[in-house]
Amino acid sequence: MSSNPLHRLLNPKSIATVGSGNNFMKMGTMHAISITKDGFAGTLYPVHPRDKSVLGVPAFPSVEALPETPDLAFLVVPSDQVVRLMEEFGKKGTKSAIIITAGFAEMGSEGSRMQQELNEVSAKYGIRFLGPNCMGIINTSISLNTTVMPYTYGPGSFGFASQSGTYVTQSIAYLAARGIRFSKAISVGNSANIDIIDALEYLGEDDQTKALSLYIEGIRDVQRFIEVARAITPRKPVLAQYVGGTGAGARSGMSHTGSMAAPDHLYDGLFRQAGIIRVHTIEDLYNYGNMLAVQPPMTGKRIGVLTNSGGPGSAMADSLERGGLEVPEFSEELQGKIRQYMQPHAPCGNPVDMTFDLNLEALAMQIPSLMLESGEVDGIVLHGAMRTGWLKAGYPHFKDFINKPLDEFLAALPDTGLDVVSVMRYGKPVIVSSFFGREDDCIEKYEDGGIPVFDSPEKAAGAMAMLLRHKEVRERLPLKRVEAPAPPVEANEIVAGCVARGEKNLDEHGSKQFLRAWGIPVTAERTAGSEKEAMALAEGIGYPLVMKASARDILHKTGKGLIHLDLKSADEAAVSYRAIQEAAGRQVPVIMYRMVKGDREFVAGIVRTPGFGPSVMFGMGGILTEALDDAVFRPAPLSEEDAAEMILDIRSRTLIGPFRGMPAVNSGALARLLHRLSIIPLAHPEVQEIDVNPVIIEGSEPVAVDALVIFNLPAKK
Amino acid sequence: MSSNPLHRLLNPKSIATVGSGNNFMKMGTMHAISITKDGFAGTLYPVHPRDKSVLGVPAFPSVEALPETPDLAFLVVPSDQVVRLMEEFGKKGTKSAIIITAGFAEMGSEGSRMQQELNEVSAKYGIRFLGPNCMGIINTSISLNTTVMPYTYGPGSFGFASQSGTYVTQSIAYLAARGIRFSKAISVGNSANIDIIDALEYLGEDDQTKALSLYIEGIRDVQRFIEVARAITPRKPVLAQYVGGTGAGARSGMSHTGSMAAPDHLYDGLFRQAGIIRVHTIEDLYNYGNMLAVQPPMTGKRIGVLTNSGGPGSAMADSLERGGLEVPEFSEELQGKIRQYMQPHAPCGNPVDMTFDLNLEALAMQIPSLMLESGEVDGIVLHGAMRTGWLKAGYPHFKDFINKPLDEFLAALPDTGLDVVSVMRYGKPVIVSSFFGREDDCIEKYEDGGIPVFDSPEKAAGAMAMLLRHKEVRERLPLKRVEAPAPPVEANEIVAGCVARGEKNLDEHGSKQFLRAWGIPVTAERTAGSEKEAMALAEGIGYPLVMKASARDILHKTGKGLIHLDLKSADEAAVSYRAIQEAAGRQVPVIMYRMVKGDREFVAGIVRTPGFGPSVMFGMGGILTEALDDAVFRPAPLSEEDAAEMILDIRSRTLIGPFRGMPAVNSGALARLLHRLSIIPLAHPEVQEIDVNPVIIEGSEPVAVDALVIFNLPAKK
Repeated sequence: MSSNPLHRLLNPKSIATVGSGNNFMKMGTMHAISITKDGFAGTLYPVHPRDKSVLGVPAFPSVEALPETPDLAFLVVPSDQVVRLMEEFGKKGTKSAIIITAGFAEMGSEGSRMQQELNEVSAKYGIRFLGPNCMGIINTSISLNTTVMPYTYGPGSFGFASQSGTYVTQSIAYLAARGIRFSKAISVGNSANIDIIDALEYLGEDDQTKALSLYIEGIRDVQRFIEVARAITPRKPVLAQYVGGTGAGARSGMSHTGSMAAPDHLYDGLFRQAGIIRVHTIEDLYNYGNMLAVQPPMTGKRIGVLTNSGGPGSAMADSLERGGLEVPEFSEELQGKIRQYMQPHAPCGNPVDMTFDLNLEALAMQIPSLMLESGEVDGIVLHGAMRTGWLKAGYPHFKDFINKPLDEFLAALPDTGLDVVSVMRYGKPVIVSSFFGREDDCIEKYEDGGIPVFDSPEKAAGAMAMLLRHKEVRERLPLKRVEAPAPPVEANEIVAGCVARGEKNLDEHGSKQFLRAWGIPVTAERTAGSEKEAMALAEGIGYPLVMKASARDILHKTGKGLIHLDLKSADEAAVSYRAIQEAAGRQVPVIMYRMVKGDREFVAGIVRTPGFGPSVMFGMGGILTEALDDAVFRPAPLSEEDAAEMILDIRSRTLIGPFRGMPAVNSGALARLLHRLSIIPLAHPEVQEIDVNPVIIEGSEPVAVDALVIFNLPAKK
Repeated sequence: MSSNPLHRLLNPKSIATVGSGNNFMKMGTMHAISITKDGFAGTLYPVHPRDKSVLGVPAFPSVEALPETPDLAFLVVPSDQVVRLMEEFGKKGTKSAIIITAGFAEMGSEGSRMQQELNEVSAKYGIRFLGPNCMGIINTSISLNTTVMPYTYGPGSFGFASQSGTYVTQSIAYLAARGIRFSKAISVGNSANIDIIDALEYLGEDDQTKALSLYIEGIRDVQRFIEVARAITPRKPVLAQYVGGTGAGARSGMSHTGSMAAPDHLYDGLFRQAGIIRVHTIEDLYNYGNMLAVQPPMTGKRIGVLTNSGGPGSAMADSLERGGLEVPEFSEELQGKIRQYMQPHAPCGNPVDMTFDLNLEALAMQIPSLMLESGEVDGIVLHGAMRTGWLKAGYPHFKDFINKPLDEFLAALPDTGLDVVSVMRYGKPVIVSSFFGREDDCIEKYEDGGIPVFDSPEKAAGAMAMLLRHKEVRERLPLKRVEAPAPPVEANEIVAGCVARGEKNLDEHGSKQFLRAWGIPVTAERTAGSEKEAMALAEGIGYPLVMKASARDILHKTGKGLIHLDLKSADEAAVSYRAIQEAAGRQVPVIMYRMVKGDREFVAGIVRTPGFGPSVMFGMGGILTEALDDAVFRPAPLSEEDAAEMILDIRSRTLIGPFRGMPAVNSGALARLLHRLSIIPLAHPEVQEIDVNPVIIEGSEPVAVDALVIFNLPAKK
């Protein structure tokens, strides 16, 4: 186990609160009420300047006056008092703190200055803290709740960490109504000290937590995030929602927690690289996170569909196949066994549709057991199990027949005796869809027994897709660390020359020489300074060949008469040489190489994003690149193994295999190309951007046919 | 108003039920209880063989014995009695029926035979009926509910028609819990007589219905569906969910309602063509359908975001921009006005984040009014308005302070006096997000006043995207009817020749001649039967030119040495001629045409699908077509106007405009090409499939460069 500060912070024996009093409408008091009322067995030490007791607990006039060193300091005070109080707790020996108070880095320069002071004082005393501008924590294993809302739903196995405090407070009743229980929930606020990566690491190590979800507005240390996540995700599912990717989302995140946001596609790649399953709604973050925590992992993709009505059955089957799962038709043998519980002619082939049949035992127990026993499915989704919810909804119509008030009628109902969650004994995922919630006794049994219930067939099917995503993550290769290598001498010289001359970019030829020095396959080209030289080179290269202008100020050549392809003779080469000079409007060097032929063109590159770092790009290339918009990103550096995975993330991934008579791409070579590109920004801080477009697949081999390397130097002119 | 049979069926003055009795656990009785108990003011005539009264209403021993002709017959009887009863109702003069009974076409051949008899007897007497295998209807304008569950939530403006009965029964309590009220709901079952298109037409004409949703497992008459929908969708939003597109979904739909399913992408095109907004979940179908019914249409895409907590604000802003909406930064003036209601430093720029501030009046009234008055937004989304829901959730913590039971405490709460729905007076969409439901008095006020409340920020933002989709539909050109034209003489001759010879397809040259006869621009090509002929033709055509094998048995030429492009001289032409003969392994005719140059390649085509009819296809073309997977479909025929719209449905639509130095595509010419393709299957029933790939854009003009026409004739060999 690591020295993660949250192990200590989440498990205090004593908590000192400052800012809590006896007015229950004040925030500070609300937090303290949660500590006193929700079952925490440790000691509360309220610090209060006047009151002798707070919430019935003896209070102390100052931190210094506390009878022992509290394990945890909990501050809900005006922002200008926070630093002083942290100093006092530091002197007292307290090593963990939660700072609820807002008004720090999220509020501009004055707040940032205070946050800096806060960091200094906590460093001085070795205090690790959550916040400021957070909502506290919930640790259900010790019944500790420090948020402002009651949490009394018992311990769960779903871990949650959030850059929004609301998602661990305003939503608690929402979660309870869906049977979702936290193991631990952590609001990280501005993350001045403990951040969301610490929370991820902690929840990964926590045995009570079986799956976890992260709400993210910005990550500060991309490489640490990946390392921590990769150590967790093969064992434990991690979901994340990121909302900083759009203009308004980023603006909002900045003012909310002071987070730096990066474009959405970079986070797509970050999460892929980390093995984290990305979702786009808080609903999915909660519900699928909890589902992954309570359900067993999936071992195959064949799903049985069972329903008491056709629409939801069709919808589940359709959604499952959209999600990459299979809904196999059952064997005659299995259908025969199922049929004994069904109306005549009702479909048994998968989906199994009992039609409007209220035989709960068959729907919830007998048929699911047959399906799970058969070996023909790896999990089931089930719609329509219901009892009291349905009776309550129908009560207005039958009350005259039974002449009993609803409560009395329900109390008199015999227990069904059905242990509906016993279908979990097969160790395969079981997911339920229902239009009823916990007002139904069946639904309550399911949720409390670890079978999540979704309020639509499509969401239940979506849960299976999530389990499948996690299966894919489990089966990945482990992370291979990539160290920044020493740059090759030739590459260093090229960069040094540019730096010395203040040149902002390399020309095409220089860019390719630079890439070649890094082991990236480029066209073997020569440069001609005159027609005579060009004609001599042409004879040496042979035909067909390519001629292109190559100059540092010519960044884009397409459609300008500066590229002449597939020249088949000396005559054509001569004509082209002259045409290029004319198109350029001046004497330009011409590069010449053997024509590279291939119908598959990709693009690869490097971008640097402030606050995020360098990323590798790969996608469909050529002159239509922008229109095709089929590119994926991953944080750099990237091992060859991860690069190989990345290649298959593009929409047009079928191009990588054998395709219409073309051989499969040498994906090892392509992955190596991306890996090598990815280490360049580590070795050369001066490299701002690299654009390799196209990378043509000739036969099965990738060749960089055009390239541009841009430096982050101020241009001299 | 049309003669749509549902006008009569949904508005009966009297209903005769057969199959209802006095055992409230029987389906037939449950349906009848709904008729008697939920407010219907008309007359019920139970037909019962023995009982003198049913549910306290005088019963009659036979249909014949009824004292008057009932407006509506309602049957819940064994399937073998349905035809006889319909005969009796026919004789009695009843013209509308609802047949709940299952066991017809969805159950195989015996059921299909009975359904046929049912059709015959109803035709004989002019009876129009819903079902069989349906769940009945709800007409809230006359408080008529014929489903098995209570519906007592009053009249709404949301129309619903469904091929699944569950979605108008099992889900009624689900809908009530979300404040969703039907205008009319129609379960069409097997649609043996009245079908979902009739239901669409009816709901389109119904004044009470302001928006409507369709749950679809298969449409039988694509052209009628489009015509009916196009007459409605510019006025009234229509949503649809289709679940028959996958293998298991189709299998399930077939057994469920006997529907023929077609591939998913065809339904995508059908809905686009119809102006129907497609959704993929029953949740969206209900919630967004109701939202569109109660909210005013959107007039612009600038959205204001207001929240009492940062996470939901960021999530709403992010989701809005993903959905195509704008979250503009507010003017200094507006920010100044808003700031007076905010904590110091809290963000006012949009999103407006009040932070954890419980000033409900500012959140629900004052700030929204400032935003809507300002002219700076076209609608707002709002998160966090809450009162009793929040107090109930927090009650366990503060009950000791107030010393009152919850009920008493809530009863003693003063009304806020806030008319939270008055913000609708600006006539702009207002959507609310909340983690609380109708247990909160604010949420109840919103929902009952026509402001939908979604249980996550992302869904609230998604509602705005739906309003924007409807705005786009409203702004479309009206449907232009396309009639099947008389085929051109030359085209007719080509087809007649093939039919006579039993040829299953045309060769490339023949295919292009056929398309040219239909006015589609193709390469101007000649055919050479010998090298000598080829050389003579080459001189006439000029260079660069193209040579290709063209033979009926050569369907795919790529990668086989049968296509030689960009031949620049007589020498190259001669070499190529011989190479083609060698690659073919026999003497083949060679077509020759001037090389068509262009970097933009599209694909166009025609496919016929059983039960769906012909469709036009358009997409990114060339040899990478399959890998790019960027194609869209529309049912044929297609007007030029609709074709122009279809062209912009591909993902790579930026290619249609000016692109990297290339001029904009002549989209009129491209639309004309698709329109002309689309009428071919109407004129030639023998044409099974047409594949035009590539259509190269030369300059700005589309030219069909390769083509294949396939007939639906049995191959002779």
